[in-house]
Amino acid sequence: MNVPVSAQDLIDDRDGRAKGAAALDSGELRLLDAYWRAANYLSVGQIYLYDNALLREKLTLAHVKPLVVGHWGTTPGQNFIYVHLNRTIRLHDLDMIYIAGPGHGGPALVANTYLEGSYSEIYPNVGQDEAGMKKLFKQFSFPGGVSSHVAPTTPGSIHEGGELGYSLSHAFGAAFDNPGLIVACVIGDGEAETGPLATSWQSNKFLDPATDGAVLPILHLNGFKISNPTLLARIEPEELEQFFRGCGWDPLFVEGDEPQTMHVLMAEAVETAIARIQAIQQNARDNNDPARPRWPMIVLRSPKGWTGPKQVDGLKIEGSFRAHQVPLLVDAAHADHVRLLEAWLRSYGPEQLFDENGTLMAEIAALAPKGDRRMGANPHANGGVLLRDLQMPDFRDHAVAVPAPGAVTAQDTMALAKFLRDVTRLNEGQRNFRIFGPDETISNLLGEVFEVTNRQWEARENADDEFLAPQGRVLDSMLSEHQCQGWLEGYLLTGRHGLFNSYEAFIRIVDSMFSQHAKWLKVTLELPWRRKIASLNYLLASHVWQQDHNGFTHQDPGFLDHVINKKADIVRVYLPPDANCLLSVFDHCLRTRHYVNVVVAGKHAMPQWLTMEQAIVHCTEGVGIWQWASNDQDGEPDVVMAGCGDTPMLEVLAAVTILRQHLPELRIRVINVVDLMRLQPSAEHPHGLSEIAYDSLFTTDKPIVFAFHGYASLVHGLTYRRANRNLHVRGYKEEGTITTAFDMRVQNDIDRFHLVQDVVDKLPNPGSKGAYLKQAMRDKLIEHKHYIDAHGEDMPEIRNWMWGA
Amino acid sequence: MNVPVSAQDLIDDRDGRAKGAAALDSGELRLLDAYWRAANYLSVGQIYLYDNALLREKLTLAHVKPLVVGHWGTTPGQNFIYVHLNRTIRLHDLDMIYIAGPGHGGPALVANTYLEGSYSEIYPNVGQDEAGMKKLFKQFSFPGGVSSHVAPTTPGSIHEGGELGYSLSHAFGAAFDNPGLIVACVIGDGEAETGPLATSWQSNKFLDPATDGAVLPILHLNGFKISNPTLLARIEPEELEQFFRGCGWDPLFVEGDEPQTMHVLMAEAVETAIARIQAIQQNARDNNDPARPRWPMIVLRSPKGWTGPKQVDGLKIEGSFRAHQVPLLVDAAHADHVRLLEAWLRSYGPEQLFDENGTLMAEIAALAPKGDRRMGANPHANGGVLLRDLQMPDFRDHAVAVPAPGAVTAQDTMALAKFLRDVTRLNEGQRNFRIFGPDETISNLLGEVFEVTNRQWEARENADDEFLAPQGRVLDSMLSEHQCQGWLEGYLLTGRHGLFNSYEAFIRIVDSMFSQHAKWLKVTLELPWRRKIASLNYLLASHVWQQDHNGFTHQDPGFLDHVINKKADIVRVYLPPDANCLLSVFDHCLRTRHYVNVVVAGKHAMPQWLTMEQAIVHCTEGVGIWQWASNDQDGEPDVVMAGCGDTPMLEVLAAVTILRQHLPELRIRVINVVDLMRLQPSAEHPHGLSEIAYDSLFTTDKPIVFAFHGYASLVHGLTYRRANRNLHVRGYKEEGTITTAFDMRVQNDIDRFHLVQDVVDKLPNPGSKGAYLKQAMRDKLIEHKHYIDAHGEDMPEIRNWMWGA
Repeated sequence: MNVPVSAQDLIDDRDGRAKGAAALDSGELRLLDAYWRAANYLSVGQIYLYDNALLREKLTLAHVKPLVVGHWGTTPGQNFIYVHLNRTIRLHDLDMIYIAGPGHGGPALVANTYLEGSYSEIYPNVGQDEAGMKKLFKQFSFPGGVSSHVAPTTPGSIHEGGELGYSLSHAFGAAFDNPGLIVACVIGDGEAETGPLATSWQSNKFLDPATDGAVLPILHLNGFKISNPTLLARIEPEELEQFFRGCGWDPLFVEGDEPQTMHVLMAEAVETAIARIQAIQQNARDNNDPARPRWPMIVLRSPKGWTGPKQVDGLKIEGSFRAHQVPLLVDAAHADHVRLLEAWLRSYGPEQLFDENGTLMAEIAALAPKGDRRMGANPHANGGVLLRDLQMPDFRDHAVAVPAPGAVTAQDTMALAKFLRDVTRLNEGQRNFRIFGPDETISNLLGEVFEVTNRQWEARENADDEFLAPQGRVLDSMLSEHQCQGWLEGYLLTGRHGLFNSYEAFIRIVDSMFSQHAKWLKVTLELPWRRKIASLNYLLASHVWQQDHNGFTHQDPGFLDHVINKKADIVRVYLPPDANCLLSVFDHCLRTRHYVNVVVAGKHAMPQWLTMEQAIVHCTEGVGIWQWASNDQDGEPDVVMAGCGDTPMLEVLAAVTILRQHLPELRIRVINVVDLMRLQPSAEHPHGLSEIAYDSLFTTDKPIVFAFHGYASLVHGLTYRRANRNLHVRGYKEEGTITTAFDMRVQNDIDRFHLVQDVVDKLPNPGSKGAYLKQAMRDKLIEHKHYIDAHGEDMPEIRNWMWGA
Repeated sequence: MNVPVSAQDLIDDRDGRAKGAAALDSGELRLLDAYWRAANYLSVGQIYLYDNALLREKLTLAHVKPLVVGHWGTTPGQNFIYVHLNRTIRLHDLDMIYIAGPGHGGPALVANTYLEGSYSEIYPNVGQDEAGMKKLFKQFSFPGGVSSHVAPTTPGSIHEGGELGYSLSHAFGAAFDNPGLIVACVIGDGEAETGPLATSWQSNKFLDPATDGAVLPILHLNGFKISNPTLLARIEPEELEQFFRGCGWDPLFVEGDEPQTMHVLMAEAVETAIARIQAIQQNARDNNDPARPRWPMIVLRSPKGWTGPKQVDGLKIEGSFRAHQVPLLVDAAHADHVRLLEAWLRSYGPEQLFDENGTLMAEIAALAPKGDRRMGANPHANGGVLLRDLQMPDFRDHAVAVPAPGAVTAQDTMALAKFLRDVTRLNEGQRNFRIFGPDETISNLLGEVFEVTNRQWEARENADDEFLAPQGRVLDSMLSEHQCQGWLEGYLLTGRHGLFNSYEAFIRIVDSMFSQHAKWLKVTLELPWRRKIASLNYLLASHVWQQDHNGFTHQDPGFLDHVINKKADIVRVYLPPDANCLLSVFDHCLRTRHYVNVVVAGKHAMPQWLTMEQAIVHCTEGVGIWQWASNDQDGEPDVVMAGCGDTPMLEVLAAVTILRQHLPELRIRVINVVDLMRLQPSAEHPHGLSEIAYDSLFTTDKPIVFAFHGYASLVHGLTYRRANRNLHVRGYKEEGTITTAFDMRVQNDIDRFHLVQDVVDKLPNPGSKGAYLKQAMRDKLIEHKHYIDAHGEDMPEIRNWMWGA
């Protein structure tokens, strides 16, 4: 049956367009149109019908849902596209998935996966018969039912409808390292106006035709958004073509509203596109041609709400913004609209489409691809099915030798780079690990990965470029956090592994994208048929305390606040205090599934505290007393000094040095927190410490002076249920400019001199020694300021400070 | 002197290019180049020199800063652009400002404003002589000095270098309603890869040539980012031209590296661009021509680090990514580089540029524009100078009549719409108020503004469009939160007023943009010469509790968490519980200066609680006891029930109804919080309640059951210093799907039945009546679930609930 047609067969020599359309004879055309009508019928049914699914009786208000919710506008166009993609899948036995950029067209994807059978395989209670159809209709956008958008519950989906803008980035992420896959990506003309989508057209400069799959963008130009026209529909046709050619694409245009003509045009366009994709791939793979291809894409201009009501109450509906959601109000106040709805539904001829049982007629059903070729059953869209463990090197090979705490310095991310280099090398064969970043891989000191791989880049190269090649494991040549995040998500969702390295401040550019991905993970966790995927790993380097030279705009540790509001099942936050801890943490993160792991790490030379053995124990615990820095071993501490983050911990230890020198009788317990979620109650987060464990570390009443990497209120938010309320937190308080790294800490009161004062302030009876020490600290701060002003650098005692010295 | 040259004079009939280049005779060319060399000299000096500013003696390591920090790469190109813009300003007496997209080129803007004199007028301690030049050099990127980026401290700037992507949106924001202004916007080719910038090219479909000013984009194609090439430099030239023509621009190309030739080419391109801008404006204004113009833009392709070191230690520097930051390391480890630095500096011929005093030679200085025409002194770039108060209607005119609490329902944003309509109408004459949104103005129920204005839209119109016109006060026809935010910021920064209406969830798309704007406000507040601008007002409608139908992806109240981490001087957060409160709050917000006001409001029909008089008092207080709902007037309350947000407050009052019915002897105090920052201590926020005031409302020890609009931890973070730790907060906990609005509350435990149970749990001695009531509430929740499943809607007692009934 599925005899693949070769690319050569399909390209007509005369004009380079496919002759595949010729194959669309009147018989197939009739069936294709019937299939489309069936999908449209099911879509309208989902939006409106509570009962009478097959219109066996006259439609009444009682058959209509009490609250009709859904988006019709994009739906018939997406049904049209899906049906035509089915055809090309069958013709060429293609491995193809479908991404619905206008994901509010949920009815289309549900209808099509139902028609092809993949829906009922996953949800057997929604069978391919009349009873099943009724359930299909009722559940849609109904309490306890399925979302009106394309969602995790939708078979074949890796892309949620909701926040728009990321479809094309997701599509490219899915295509990387999947040379046999074609990702069809429907892009709404509303979505196309978002920033992330606008820049994602450039992704074609990063896709290797030899070793990656293909992306077939289909811009669905239906002309309207919620209540406005769309820009791309209202510029001149020649501008539209210039725009896409300027973005490096080879656009094919399909335009009209007469279904029969449109089927012929669309079939030709799809066949042409597939033929060109195959020709490009064949050329690259057979001839090793490094030229950047101009990949085909399709622009489909069809009416919004196509085949729906033309006019209602004198207002234009089809082909206008009024078709965006529910084009026809059918309720007690609009009871006469019932007959319009019935006429609309009957216009699809349901009796010609479904048999007596309510099952799609066999000759129509035969048009769907079979088995895993159905887009609702393609395993790439349930990536966990395809997920293979990473080959993991031994991170301990890159341990920094730490003869004594603070005795050596190292650059944490540089140590991590060696480990990531090894991970890259070990998994080169299985091609399922990539590193993403917005041109910051070198800046974040991960450059050692380029010993074993390159930056993937398909545009022009110059002799002086570094590490560019048509193939490579690093995608960091585009200055767009949105693209990094979108590509990585697409890559993970199709069953691979990776990480995103970014400056800490600018990860906030993708706050909303993280949020949507975390929501996706939360919901898929509740769906047994969805397999777990690899975690999304963030390496936030060049963090807030190392932005003394770039200044205030580069200082924002608030991503942590954002992350911890998501479900505890999903989010993990680590702030390793040194290189060995970073190695241990990152090794763990790369092994985890279905989390978002946020790791904050520094790149500057900083003192190292723990041996690798100590680091492993410490990171496994996630929080612990650093006995070597504490002097409370013979009893209760007088004060607990805690640090979380490399820089706060450095200042905590410097403060401890001062305190132990000047107040040697003060019993200090020093705690480091690596795993931030340990602070939450165990009832709220699986990593949370039990009350007993927390109290045994932090005591129930002794003062805690806590130096934190981010905003202080985050620690208060995590610990408000803890018994010990004697907690004093220092963190970033939005102060900072061009200055020294130490002065940055002073400006935010998190430096050693402030911390010592905080401890004295918290002592029940600081005495004259305490008062003297406080004054000495104030003097130190004045001395510091003077030195900075005079010399532009820190005084030697800061620069040369060593633990214990 | 400044005889304006008309557009007609400048357009050469033969090819439409300007003949202005002819005016660049050899004398002017020599001076222009000298001016550019002076700017380059000052830029290199800022990056490197601690002393010996005029190279009066041989350069030694002692003259070089201990830590050399700065970005050279973009700087000479921006100096080149600035000098040429100066020329056209002088030629035509133009009102022009300069936006530096590659804002890390701080040295360029500082150098040029210093040369033209605007810098020293603002900072008299940095005079135009040798001593001043030394200060200029030393302060740059030096502790306590000025940022290495273009920053609020930089005269003439409304756009900070740091996070990239927003320059062109800012430029358009500045141009709206400024018909005499030309905004020159330099866009880096790295920045051009960001999503926000990529979509902002489309802004030309929204600029009215008759009533707005012009934007002249200058894409600076210097080929490299931090360590990667840029995409736009590595596509084919015909693709680049197609891209811009596809975006609706008319590009002019200037390309090369030989200064003399480049001056001639650039002068011609700038003159051509200005002539075309003037011709477009003249045509639109004289002929009322509604055709969308193809505005000119310039693509300047010049080497990165132009005129800097060609090679260092065998590696190419000029024209490579290595020129991005400091192209030449000069320190003890690279002591031999001192002579390279000296040769580089001397290549500009400082002795020909500056006189004995270190002052720019008079014949060179004459090339700068004069007075306010200098881009560093243009009042548009210090918008507070131009700010005029809004004409304010009386918001009380739109009061919702509330005969008794809960007696009527209204749609809050619909009431606000009437007020905004009046604000729009009243300020139509002074043209300084605009409403921005991503196609959500109608959805957020603000449509009544279209009674008096339109959506501004310059692209094609169809007969069926609604409210589109070439001029209008609403900019909501582009689906891009980035554009809305960027345009509004540009509009505010140039001294006008406005608001951004958005779905609450999707405002997170601009988290990072808000953050940068808040930082800008914080720093400008510390600069006496910067005048205060109008506040940035967010109206977050279609909020988390009204996204039951769109589902989980549309639910995110976390923007509040993000906002409150910024400086207390800057941020204000309001959650009005009903329409009259919303009116009162918004009237206040529109009158404020230099804040970010976040207002969360609903659009669904909800019970109304306060008369306008009560609302004004309540909103002025920001928090208060609702006596009519409380029954603790004769003593201490047994429990405090607090709500913040319209939906939580509704549930609080419903819970109070149940409690007072079943436990009539329980003394309940009901509190509503409108102004969220009232919860913080007064030491931390100017709106914060004093301890006495807080305790008198919330008591020091009675249980507080607090229903909050957003994430519960936010309230804990704000109140952790308060005496009363007996605080139990309910909020959104990331649960929600397609269901009823009430079921959404149930899923997050914030509904009346859960709140009643919370109160009982907190009572020291709930007794058997308490136990009975808890069980009754559990039963109610089961009943609710059953009803939803059976009917797809809430049970009648929920739908029909009224206060006190």
